[in-house]
Amino acid sequence: MTSPANHIHRRRVEFADTDAAGVAHFSRLLAMVEEAEHGFFRERGIPILTNDSAWPVVRSEVDFCGACQFGEEIEIRLGDFLPGKSSLAYVFEGTIDGRKVFSGKMTKCHISPATGRAVEISGDVLGKIRGVI
Amino acid sequence: MTSPANHIHRRRVEFADTDAAGVAHFSRLLAMVEEAEHGFFRERGIPILTNDSAWPVVRSEVDFCGACQFGEEIEIRLGDFLPGKSSLAYVFEGTIDGRKVFSGKMTKCHISPATGRAVEISGDVLGKIRGVI
Amino acid sequence: MTSPANHIHRRRVEFADTDAAGVAHFSRLLAMVEEAEHGFFRERGIPILTNDSAWPVVRSEVDFCGACQFGEEIEIRLGDFLPGKSSLAYVFEGTIDGRKVFSGKMTKCHISPATGRAVEISGDVLGKIRGVI
Amino acid sequence: MTSPANHIHRRRVEFADTDAAGVAHFSRLLAMVEEAEHGFFRERGIPILTNDSAWPVVRSEVDFCGACQFGEEIEIRLGDFLPGKSSLAYVFEGTIDGRKVFSGKMTKCHISPATGRAVEISGDVLGKIRGVI
Repeated sequence: MTSPANHIHRRRVEFADTDAAGVAHFSRLLAMVEEAEHGFFRERGIPILTNDSAWPVVRSEVDFCGACQFGEEIEIRLGDFLPGKSSLAYVFEGTIDGRKVFSGKMTKCHISPATGRAVEISGDVLGKIRGVI
Repeated sequence: MTSPANHIHRRRVEFADTDAAGVAHFSRLLAMVEEAEHGFFRERGIPILTNDSAWPVVRSEVDFCGACQFGEEIEIRLGDFLPGKSSLAYVFEGTIDGRKVFSGKMTKCHISPATGRAVEISGDVLGKIRGVI
Repeated sequence: MTSPANHIHRRRVEFADTDAAGVAHFSRLLAMVEEAEHGFFRERGIPILTNDSAWPVVRSEVDFCGACQFGEEIEIRLGDFLPGKSSLAYVFEGTIDGRKVFSGKMTKCHISPATGRAVEISGDVLGKIRGVI
Repeated sequence: MTSPANHIHRRRVEFADTDAAGVAHFSRLLAMVEEAEHGFFRERGIPILTNDSAWPVVRSEVDFCGACQFGEEIEIRLGDFLPGKSSLAYVFEGTIDGRKVFSGKMTKCHISPATGRAVEISGDVLGKIRGVI
């Protein structure tokens, strides 16, 4: 993440997030990244799920480099938001007390839930993503 | 469960079902009971979720009496299905190699997803629940 | 809940908590009650999971009386903590903007994770539960 | 996946796997890939989680290309297993009725749970992965 983070989310590793190896299950860490993304959307007034708009993941790439123990607080930073015509990519990094535990890149597609087809991102939403509006 | 079971579901405890105590998280066991219920519905041709029909839980009572380790196979038996005007109650029991690990009772409500209101169970569905049809 | 609540936890319904009926899955609401309980334990300095101590659920009773939509914030109140020799019961209530969405009672057992057997709750922990210490 | 699949896992999309967009949540699809992997391990007699051995994910790459509806059965194929000194990579593909819904690559690390450090994969396990033994 070369640019300053656009959004920071803090989230404790809860018991239901952990697995029998004693740490957060990797699938739950991905759900936490999505929580961070939705926090960014809420903060900027971008609709997350409506009759006209949904944002399914089309690609995720994650490197897991450290264990996240039960009860620890993860700081998830999102940055480098890059909107396309009907897509949105961003990078993320998770740290615990400054120690990096995972990082990666997520690509979402903006679709119409009714048709399941990609839909162009409006200028209004583009502006909100870029922080201009 | 005094009457013969109306439905049997077998389900391995997967890694994502476990928690840091090394066993299946109690919330995942409840999700497995629902899987068993949906298997019963499918077997009898009862719609689970449509535009006209959904079955949210309105009450659950569970006694957990044994640990369910990662990789173990749980047998979940459902029985004593008791339909009301717009509700459906049943009892359940989970065992691992004949050892009881949990049991309880679940009550569902039949609603219209559009209004969120209770809707009378049709005679057709009642017949399917009772195994007459 | 007749007595004043001993602990309050606020938790947004995240996307991964929801199901195809558009609301929080009932199993995730139970996981949130556990989050609230662990918050209470942390606040009072009671160990949640150590080599000597774990608190599995032995009984849960829940009435679900209202839908919890994606993005809504649930306030979970815990109260009436009643410790036994090696057990701990409490009641809980979830509300959204003052509207009750679920309530129930949870009973936990204090065990040794090594043996899986019930272990007497120490005087120190009893004091912390009762708020005396 | 150019080589024949080494393992096939079939798994219905259960209600608790879905989200408010009406389809399986992407994090649950990753948990299902892990279920498939554990099925492969079990089939070949490779320990999944012991005092000496655990296999955390170190990298996951996934392309999601189709929705997985509630109740649909996903066929997950694993192949191209490539063991390193203390790592194991494989590719995966999920299909529903022959329609591709996701694919990707997973890299696991073989560690000692006690130390959290990478541990060389034994010749016995290597043989089992390669199907020689």
